[in-house]
Amino acid sequence: MMKLRFMAVVVMLLSCTERHKSTAKGSENEYTVESVRASLIRQEDTIIFSVIERARFPLNSPTYHQHYASIPHFSGSLLDVVLDYTEAIQAKFLHTAASSINTNKNIRKVYFHEMLPLFVAFGDDGNYAQTAASDLSILQAISRRIHYGKFVAEAKFRESPRDYEPLIRAKDRKALLKLLTSKNVEEIVVKRVEKKAMVFGQEVSLDHDVKGNYKVDPAIVSRLYKKWIIPMTKNVELEYLLRRLD
Amino acid sequence: MMKLRFMAVVVMLLSCTERHKSTAKGSENEYTVESVRASLIRQEDTIIFSVIERARFPLNSPTYHQHYASIPHFSGSLLDVVLDYTEAIQAKFLHTAASSINTNKNIRKVYFHEMLPLFVAFGDDGNYAQTAASDLSILQAISRRIHYGKFVAEAKFRESPRDYEPLIRAKDRKALLKLLTSKNVEEIVVKRVEKKAMVFGQEVSLDHDVKGNYKVDPAIVSRLYKKWIIPMTKNVELEYLLRRLD
Repeated sequence: MMKLRFMAVVVMLLSCTERHKSTAKGSENEYTVESVRASLIRQEDTIIFSVIERARFPLNSPTYHQHYASIPHFSGSLLDVVLDYTEAIQAKFLHTAASSINTNKNIRKVYFHEMLPLFVAFGDDGNYAQTAASDLSILQAISRRIHYGKFVAEAKFRESPRDYEPLIRAKDRKALLKLLTSKNVEEIVVKRVEKKAMVFGQEVSLDHDVKGNYKVDPAIVSRLYKKWIIPMTKNVELEYLLRRLD
Repeated sequence: MMKLRFMAVVVMLLSCTERHKSTAKGSENEYTVESVRASLIRQEDTIIFSVIERARFPLNSPTYHQHYASIPHFSGSLLDVVLDYTEAIQAKFLHTAASSINTNKNIRKVYFHEMLPLFVAFGDDGNYAQTAASDLSILQAISRRIHYGKFVAEAKFRESPRDYEPLIRAKDRKALLKLLTSKNVEEIVVKRVEKKAMVFGQEVSLDHDVKGNYKVDPAIVSRLYKKWIIPMTKNVELEYLLRRLD
């Protein structure tokens, strides 16, 4: 049992340190708006796959009970620790501004209270462990996406520092938010994730195509992006930029 | 750090014990050929999603070096321990025949030496941790599918015990294998997973449909099933049946 524990820990920790390597390789010269966006597009697939996998199970609320013996603090400290560990490593490869930005507590709260109830059925099938593992996958994917805002912001800043610098010095949050927002790009993202949810979440059968029968409602996926994932990413971008010249 | 380790272990262990609950709930009366097949069909999605996620990375062979410091024994004992722990729990909910059947060492060998090189590019991008985590996901999904052969065999046995009993008593492996094989069903599975790989692995874009550009070659996915996953599942079925009357 001790052996299993030790080995399982190794895998889990390594899973958290992945960004270290990839970030290290991509450091300095690769933070272009284009390369960062390409990564965000690929991350959409991971987020949508993980949401579809979680939707196999109903809410399974005992997973999150504070006193459910097998998963102590699952909805709280466990997730924060794992997610924060990830962010701490990621932040090391950016301007020092990055290290002070961490919105995981907020992501966790929004995920459990607002997002999750939208795409799982109410009920309990006893699969608490798989449920916890699936939640963790989604949270890691979403947290990664939102904190990727630091790279997005760095890329945007490098593209046009003269536009950003005066606004940063003036701490003009409103003008900064406007400058870093591209309504057109946002609309494309929202539409694309809806299409991806349609494609990846359809029931695939040989005899007949079951159109309109999705494992997760595609409109919900686009709502997750529109209402939370995009705004929270932009908030990370904003916070990063405000500290960029410190 | 100790806290993180402890908590990460909890998630990992729970992830392994999931089948305990689901199997307990489905015990006794739900092992019909139809219900077992429905589970296998849903498991296809999980396997294909995980293969697509793994294919994001090249082979990354240092992940598997015996002396790669961060992942000791990853290609060997680590995986066996995690996977075997899963199977030990699963087997508890079946006829005693189940507990003696475990083909994880073989699955691991086939996976790394034959399956994996078919769907990843040769190369090294440094993402060893994500690579290890992805391999573990696929191995868990494939191991679950193959050892599900115990449930498949139990369901088939219950459906027509009079056909199976004399062959089991005679230890007639050849006739048993013939009896539990449905060529028609196998062909449907192979075609369906190919179609699923086409659907789930396509590049989804708003402007244009990129047909024929798949993240994993669909023909490879059907080959994984035809050449290894289906035969190995049938072998588990056969071994289970041979012990069914002990």
